[in-house]
Amino acid sequence: MHQIVAAIDIGGTNTVIGIVDKEGNILSRASIPTTDYPNPKDLVEVVSKKILDLIAFCQLPTAGFVLAGVGIGAPNGNYFSGTIEFAPNLKWKGVIPLAKYFSDTLNVKAVLTNDANAAALGEMYFGGARGMKDFIFVTLGTGLGSGIVVDGKMVYGHDGFAGELGHIIVMQHGRQCGCGRKGCLEQYCSASGIVKTYFEILRSAGSESPKLIDSEKVDAKYIFEKAMGGDENAFYAFNYTGEVLGLALANSVAYTSPEAIFLFGGLAQAGELLFNPTVISFEKNLLNIYRDKIKILPSALPENDAPILGAASLIWNELAQHS
Amino acid sequence: MHQIVAAIDIGGTNTVIGIVDKEGNILSRASIPTTDYPNPKDLVEVVSKKILDLIAFCQLPTAGFVLAGVGIGAPNGNYFSGTIEFAPNLKWKGVIPLAKYFSDTLNVKAVLTNDANAAALGEMYFGGARGMKDFIFVTLGTGLGSGIVVDGKMVYGHDGFAGELGHIIVMQHGRQCGCGRKGCLEQYCSASGIVKTYFEILRSAGSESPKLIDSEKVDAKYIFEKAMGGDENAFYAFNYTGEVLGLALANSVAYTSPEAIFLFGGLAQAGELLFNPTVISFEKNLLNIYRDKIKILPSALPENDAPILGAASLIWNELAQHS
Repeated sequence: MHQIVAAIDIGGTNTVIGIVDKEGNILSRASIPTTDYPNPKDLVEVVSKKILDLIAFCQLPTAGFVLAGVGIGAPNGNYFSGTIEFAPNLKWKGVIPLAKYFSDTLNVKAVLTNDANAAALGEMYFGGARGMKDFIFVTLGTGLGSGIVVDGKMVYGHDGFAGELGHIIVMQHGRQCGCGRKGCLEQYCSASGIVKTYFEILRSAGSESPKLIDSEKVDAKYIFEKAMGGDENAFYAFNYTGEVLGLALANSVAYTSPEAIFLFGGLAQAGELLFNPTVISFEKNLLNIYRDKIKILPSALPENDAPILGAASLIWNELAQHS
Repeated sequence: MHQIVAAIDIGGTNTVIGIVDKEGNILSRASIPTTDYPNPKDLVEVVSKKILDLIAFCQLPTAGFVLAGVGIGAPNGNYFSGTIEFAPNLKWKGVIPLAKYFSDTLNVKAVLTNDANAAALGEMYFGGARGMKDFIFVTLGTGLGSGIVVDGKMVYGHDGFAGELGHIIVMQHGRQCGCGRKGCLEQYCSASGIVKTYFEILRSAGSESPKLIDSEKVDAKYIFEKAMGGDENAFYAFNYTGEVLGLALANSVAYTSPEAIFLFGGLAQAGELLFNPTVISFEKNLLNIYRDKIKILPSALPENDAPILGAASLIWNELAQHS
């Protein structure tokens, strides 16, 4: 019997749906605007129909396959309860039992976790962490998300909310974070963090007044292109980001002593510009027993496929753990 | 068949040996000076004989019990390899395969890990963490040791050296640490750390010159007694220690989201003087999703029994995991 899973990534703007087999092939996919559905039950209904359409589209032998489950990655997703809880980037307020809605509608197992945890599992099943039992996965997007795997298992913690490295405080009295506190890692090491760093550098350098550049135009990609073009301030913004990230990752090693740390997301695509200063700071700040043996690697998941492969891995992982 | 284990705690000064049953009763115990044995094999021979003597002393029914194994807690102990590796506080240099020496000599299973990991398991089997699956255990002794339990299992990491919270860098360019780096947590939150803090406070307060007090006399206990007697500088030293510890523990929660954090060791015995500022700083620095639900608790293990109960737990844990 050929098993397939339906993978769903709930984003603030779009919800992406994919049908994925055990080898990580995405057999078909679709996308709908999350914002069109102020009532989550309406989204579940539309997505469930879409899943059945997509499966039909795959032209699998009708008698030869089974839908093993629905895997869902979502912001503020809680693995234990299968709920999305108070997600600031979604219109849905409060606690939404999304996994239950899907399992009720489609009559299959539905597993939900936060998007970074899902992507970490994707890395383990279909990316660079294949065969690894201990690693940390970090997404450097608008914010900083993370998933920690220990002894082959995702760390969920007592309440399902483990692995929030974006909110470790790395600078006391540092930059204001959206979480209400100051100095969180994601205020420095993320696409939005590096923009703040770049403007700080411009202000203190005085060589190019921030007023002279169109601040609307400045994003991580702009700073990347500037740095590649030889702009020292942009280059230094990446250096500083790597320095802060390297120290935070070195401290992270003292918790779970991973084999590797994977960096994923827009900012990680800056390549050496980010990885070089990160690795230098990482090794410099590591306790001697950990030095020269922990790899900092770019994620091996394709940027666009990662949310789907991650959500799919939730089900493959569930089946593997209970087989 | 009644099972018992031999528990060994290798310390820089003394090696303590105990015979422990499954309920955590220490049936008999002994101690020998570690420093008398520059060759670890000699210590193993003497300790092995002592174990047989202690078992005889317990007057167990000869046909009715079995020695299930030898559990060993040791500085720089590596669970995976059963070795003590480059322990700065022991005379034995290099890598010592102590678990193998014991299993060869006594012909039973021998399991070794570092002393803080062992004590954390002791807390799980015989202390306040009974029934908990996710917790962090912190020893505040001369240094700061720790053990992290996730989903009911000790976190060892890829290399067996996970859980070195004493060496997370909490102050960049901070106090010089014995590990060669600066600003490690144990330079602030430990019996030796609070002495440094106290002298810093005296120097900056100027109210009582450090020169006027016999600096040899000042240890954590001295500062505790001063604080209990109303000395503001000593009181502030505890406050500062708690502030730094509370922030570090709040950051730790973002990794493994534990149900509770246990504080053990000399400094933890200062009670409210340390716990009050620690809890205030902890809650203030926690990400909102974690607030008001994670307990910071004193260890429920008796100070003198903890190393033995911890080492014994290594074997009970091994049997539980593989049963």
